[in-house]
Amino acid sequence: MIKVGIIGATGYAGGELVRLLANHREAQVVWYGSRSYIDKRYSEVYQNMFHIVEDVCKDDNLAELAGQVDVIFTATPQGFLAGVLTEEILSKVKVVDLSADYRIKDVSVYEKWYGIEHRSPQFIPEAVYGLCEVNRGLITEETRLVANPGCYTTCSILTAYPLVKEGLIDVDTLIVDAKSGTSGAGRGAKVPNLFCEVNENMKAYGVASHRHTPEIEEQLGYAGNCRVTINFTPHLVPMNRGILATEYASLRRKADGSLPSYEEVKAVYDKYYAKEKFVRVLEKGVCPETKWVEGSNYVDVNFVIDERTGRIIMMGALDNLVKGAAGQAVQNMNLLFGLKESEGLELVPCFP
Amino acid sequence: MIKVGIIGATGYAGGELVRLLANHREAQVVWYGSRSYIDKRYSEVYQNMFHIVEDVCKDDNLAELAGQVDVIFTATPQGFLAGVLTEEILSKVKVVDLSADYRIKDVSVYEKWYGIEHRSPQFIPEAVYGLCEVNRGLITEETRLVANPGCYTTCSILTAYPLVKEGLIDVDTLIVDAKSGTSGAGRGAKVPNLFCEVNENMKAYGVASHRHTPEIEEQLGYAGNCRVTINFTPHLVPMNRGILATEYASLRRKADGSLPSYEEVKAVYDKYYAKEKFVRVLEKGVCPETKWVEGSNYVDVNFVIDERTGRIIMMGALDNLVKGAAGQAVQNMNLLFGLKESEGLELVPCFP
Amino acid sequence: MIKVGIIGATGYAGGELVRLLANHREAQVVWYGSRSYIDKRYSEVYQNMFHIVEDVCKDDNLAELAGQVDVIFTATPQGFLAGVLTEEILSKVKVVDLSADYRIKDVSVYEKWYGIEHRSPQFIPEAVYGLCEVNRGLITEETRLVANPGCYTTCSILTAYPLVKEGLIDVDTLIVDAKSGTSGAGRGAKVPNLFCEVNENMKAYGVASHRHTPEIEEQLGYAGNCRVTINFTPHLVPMNRGILATEYASLRRKADGSLPSYEEVKAVYDKYYAKEKFVRVLEKGVCPETKWVEGSNYVDVNFVIDERTGRIIMMGALDNLVKGAAGQAVQNMNLLFGLKESEGLELVPCFP
Amino acid sequence: MIKVGIIGATGYAGGELVRLLANHREAQVVWYGSRSYIDKRYSEVYQNMFHIVEDVCKDDNLAELAGQVDVIFTATPQGFLAGVLTEEILSKVKVVDLSADYRIKDVSVYEKWYGIEHRSPQFIPEAVYGLCEVNRGLITEETRLVANPGCYTTCSILTAYPLVKEGLIDVDTLIVDAKSGTSGAGRGAKVPNLFCEVNENMKAYGVASHRHTPEIEEQLGYAGNCRVTINFTPHLVPMNRGILATEYASLRRKADGSLPSYEEVKAVYDKYYAKEKFVRVLEKGVCPETKWVEGSNYVDVNFVIDERTGRIIMMGALDNLVKGAAGQAVQNMNLLFGLKESEGLELVPCFP
Repeated sequence: MIKVGIIGATGYAGGELVRLLANHREAQVVWYGSRSYIDKRYSEVYQNMFHIVEDVCKDDNLAELAGQVDVIFTATPQGFLAGVLTEEILSKVKVVDLSADYRIKDVSVYEKWYGIEHRSPQFIPEAVYGLCEVNRGLITEETRLVANPGCYTTCSILTAYPLVKEGLIDVDTLIVDAKSGTSGAGRGAKVPNLFCEVNENMKAYGVASHRHTPEIEEQLGYAGNCRVTINFTPHLVPMNRGILATEYASLRRKADGSLPSYEEVKAVYDKYYAKEKFVRVLEKGVCPETKWVEGSNYVDVNFVIDERTGRIIMMGALDNLVKGAAGQAVQNMNLLFGLKESEGLELVPCFP
Repeated sequence: MIKVGIIGATGYAGGELVRLLANHREAQVVWYGSRSYIDKRYSEVYQNMFHIVEDVCKDDNLAELAGQVDVIFTATPQGFLAGVLTEEILSKVKVVDLSADYRIKDVSVYEKWYGIEHRSPQFIPEAVYGLCEVNRGLITEETRLVANPGCYTTCSILTAYPLVKEGLIDVDTLIVDAKSGTSGAGRGAKVPNLFCEVNENMKAYGVASHRHTPEIEEQLGYAGNCRVTINFTPHLVPMNRGILATEYASLRRKADGSLPSYEEVKAVYDKYYAKEKFVRVLEKGVCPETKWVEGSNYVDVNFVIDERTGRIIMMGALDNLVKGAAGQAVQNMNLLFGLKESEGLELVPCFP
Repeated sequence: MIKVGIIGATGYAGGELVRLLANHREAQVVWYGSRSYIDKRYSEVYQNMFHIVEDVCKDDNLAELAGQVDVIFTATPQGFLAGVLTEEILSKVKVVDLSADYRIKDVSVYEKWYGIEHRSPQFIPEAVYGLCEVNRGLITEETRLVANPGCYTTCSILTAYPLVKEGLIDVDTLIVDAKSGTSGAGRGAKVPNLFCEVNENMKAYGVASHRHTPEIEEQLGYAGNCRVTINFTPHLVPMNRGILATEYASLRRKADGSLPSYEEVKAVYDKYYAKEKFVRVLEKGVCPETKWVEGSNYVDVNFVIDERTGRIIMMGALDNLVKGAAGQAVQNMNLLFGLKESEGLELVPCFP
Repeated sequence: MIKVGIIGATGYAGGELVRLLANHREAQVVWYGSRSYIDKRYSEVYQNMFHIVEDVCKDDNLAELAGQVDVIFTATPQGFLAGVLTEEILSKVKVVDLSADYRIKDVSVYEKWYGIEHRSPQFIPEAVYGLCEVNRGLITEETRLVANPGCYTTCSILTAYPLVKEGLIDVDTLIVDAKSGTSGAGRGAKVPNLFCEVNENMKAYGVASHRHTPEIEEQLGYAGNCRVTINFTPHLVPMNRGILATEYASLRRKADGSLPSYEEVKAVYDKYYAKEKFVRVLEKGVCPETKWVEGSNYVDVNFVIDERTGRIIMMGALDNLVKGAAGQAVQNMNLLFGLKESEGLELVPCFP
């Protein structure tokens, strides 16, 4: 049984880790770290876990925790892990970081977009970007540090990845218009996240400045083997969970000037995803809906070709707390320990 | 492997049965009955099941189905099962009926409240009322027909049951004010259930006339060994899932004129529920919230004694599609086949 | 033109005062008091007022404000007004207090339920309880201090008032089960009021201890000329606005043992409300819905008699920010200045 | 007093016309046409109008109605008005059509996108496209037929109009990603519009095929004096009201290769909108939110320039039932009769 410690167990992503691991056959949470609720029973913070989790919250002492568990999940604010991670810790325990600290290879890009100094850039090179469907081969029992991708990022990348990889679209034209449920904003007590401010409302935010932008660009750049610069616009939607990404790009025309056909594009998606358990390429004409993946680790993707404009509209939907955070983190853990990749993640989406 | 047929598989309760049984280790759905969607792939009706269920919908021929499966769940409108059930069917297969057809022992009460003639009253006597925590002993491998309780009913009864059973409250003063999410209204296309009519709105309905009233009265009457007549008022709430019952009754005073203490009442709840997996008696001062049980088979209950009025306020919360319908049906199936009662139901509530 | 100052203009009730007064023909807000946003433009706090209100927020100096306006609305936390109100202020300006400070005549009851010392009890006797439909005659150009009723209170009282006044119900059996939208919880940044905590959720709170209880009891006591002790249970509902009160009481039987008829009860409601502009007694069989009054100053009421239990179920719905707070405050202001009572309040409910 | 007839008074747009006209000082509804509810009291269909509208619904006989009123609003399905409009009707009465029948000048485009034959194309030339801020000069007391713009269209056009008009953007790069509340889907009883299907869900629909596309293209084509072909993607959002359009286009670089500055773009918006009562260009950095315009006739617009990609992100928000339908229709009526353009439309947005 793998012993698991969670730092930041009382945020929404941490809570989702607890939910998923409660039904994991090979792992067990033994440390519920939460700076805000030290010594409080976890089930008092999240009453859904009453009778399921009996533990009390502990502090977030990574060094102490490293000696007691096999893997640590850090669901913490940006900069936290970078500030405390040491070689000694990594020599004892695997770390799956749900923050952005090790996602971006160029530390100056990280520091510019996040506006903070990175305090342990020496670990960036060894960190594996844990987008399992793309980097599965790099996440092994030797890996010590996994940078778990962001929620918007996972959705945005997987929706466009096959087409970028195969050069079907002009990446300079790529625009990602993304919509997210409110759990993505975290459990912090802030006026803009109050029920009455979010409900019956919709807005864009972080326009041309959201921190997931360089992460998407970097990863799609690897896929396309080119520099990628995109527009990414997140929006806040009055629902708890779910991200929907609507992506636009010009299709590259074939030698005869024609656009790729539906079947040609579909074949490219299938090339990468037909065998992927957690990516479902929907049938022709079916648009992804966030509700169809809620509570599960699925990403649903599909596309429409617009002959009039020569663009393709790609769409992807996932649950931001599962495939967009805790689910993918568990998927990474499974890979790190050589378990079945879907262990603990055979979750059927809940509808309605 | 138990072979399962579902009649009414494309309603919300039927869909929830499919979701729950997808992860059941001892049962497998082999017949997805749906009069409205015959020959359509199930996953086209419920896209959440894409890649999970490959079957097409079949018709609702109970007689044919009886020869092919071990148990049939009927998630059908009132009167359907009563109109087609036969001795031959029951001789071949177990039936768990999620409609009201066999819940009420006095057929005249059924006919009065439901406004339809009961077409097979001869099966009423043998039907077991499948409220597992109360009637567990009656649901055995010999049982042929289980009347699965209603959603409001399960919540209303379990919230008050120990106190009625032990005579702590004056049942003539019992008032149940219940609130339900909208999935309880079903998937029929009706104007009052449109998003814009339900959202940002709240109302009572079926005041003094809702059909779950006699069901609650009958079962609490068995518990208290007396005739029970209550007020039951359901309300429609703008949320998908969840029932909250707030119940009021005068406490019976002790010989010295004093009210029972918190500890005394708590002990009574614990007497009946401390060992029940699916009933959680919350800690003092914690009010049940529907979100804390969402997606799971739990019922959360608690109470407050009001010294000023001599009344007790009891509260219960459950997920109307799980413990209030499909979850309890699976729990009944497990009992019918001698399986572990919680098989397929070890669901951790999903928050947020 | 009446000059208006608002203390607490950036809370939800304060914001609603600003919205209503923007279309009032005889009054003009000249002071937007907000301790939290001093010197910030009001429309930056509430962008809906962009281009409508150009003023900046000022502090909450009641003494200074008293010399500059004709009436002050205080939409402030409990205890604030009691701590600063003086004879000098009241000699200069009328005050409509939306907090609870002057609602309860017995200061010990106030101090017990609110848990704070009342710092100016000398003004309690002269304060008029501003439930316009009941106390209209007491709110005159001579009145200096109006205690604007609470949101739950207004709904709870008006729903039962005629029957208590005319002695049709046994007040000792009265139970009020109330449900409120989340704006009633205010704009403070607290975890329990976050979107993800409220959405898809429902709960009771303040069971047997909510502060509006003694206010309802006092006012219904005046109506019935008796001591009233009730159960009042508030619930939080995932919607922005709206209160629905479902009230239960035993009807007093007539000399012949029969219950009052529908027509007899209806006549009593009509006696008090037929001429009231803002109270709508709905037609037989129609249950009040919060959406039907949203954005307006209406209270919709109706009732059902249950012959089986001898009880009457009364229902009332209002918009907690309008008739439950700012609308009623404007109605009181209109009375205080001898204006048409409905000036600024001819609001058509907004649907959907 | 202008006498008004409404055909389709019981749909959501029709209901909003009734709400707005209830407070209009110069107009009075005398005919509530509704094929579905003939002879039923209007307030039974929309209980919010109880005590406000006493009329019963009449049928939708346009010819009869034409003799009795000064203006007819048709809030009817596509094709209805085109099927019944005659020269005789137009000789008697002005018509403001909220359907798409006369919005598109090229009848073949209409017939292609709407899939129906246009049965009175002879009236298309005289119909004025009633986007008041753009075509105000054409909507006069001589005008007989106004084609009231669509909801998505109004938002999409006004958000980009000044930049297209002044040639600041490359219209071939224009992409409109729009999000709408569910009232835009109408009051028809359809499964996809049920509460449980929409709530906690988000999806795109009508991708590359939505009927508002050619309407936007035609109008922006007039503005830019060029052929415009765009991508327009609508999305369904779990809220009652509100449209948010997020629009992307490449800015035209200046002679020196630089992008226009914020101030330059702002000046262009101000050139067209600074004097417009109903268009609010927000301050720098403020993103439009649908809630800030709810219930009002405002359109809020703003933009962000992305130096990295050379694109501008334009954003617009309106209430789809007000400025997107009934409000703009009333605005058109005011122009048709020479009234103050904002009469009946001085609505303060309702928050929260």
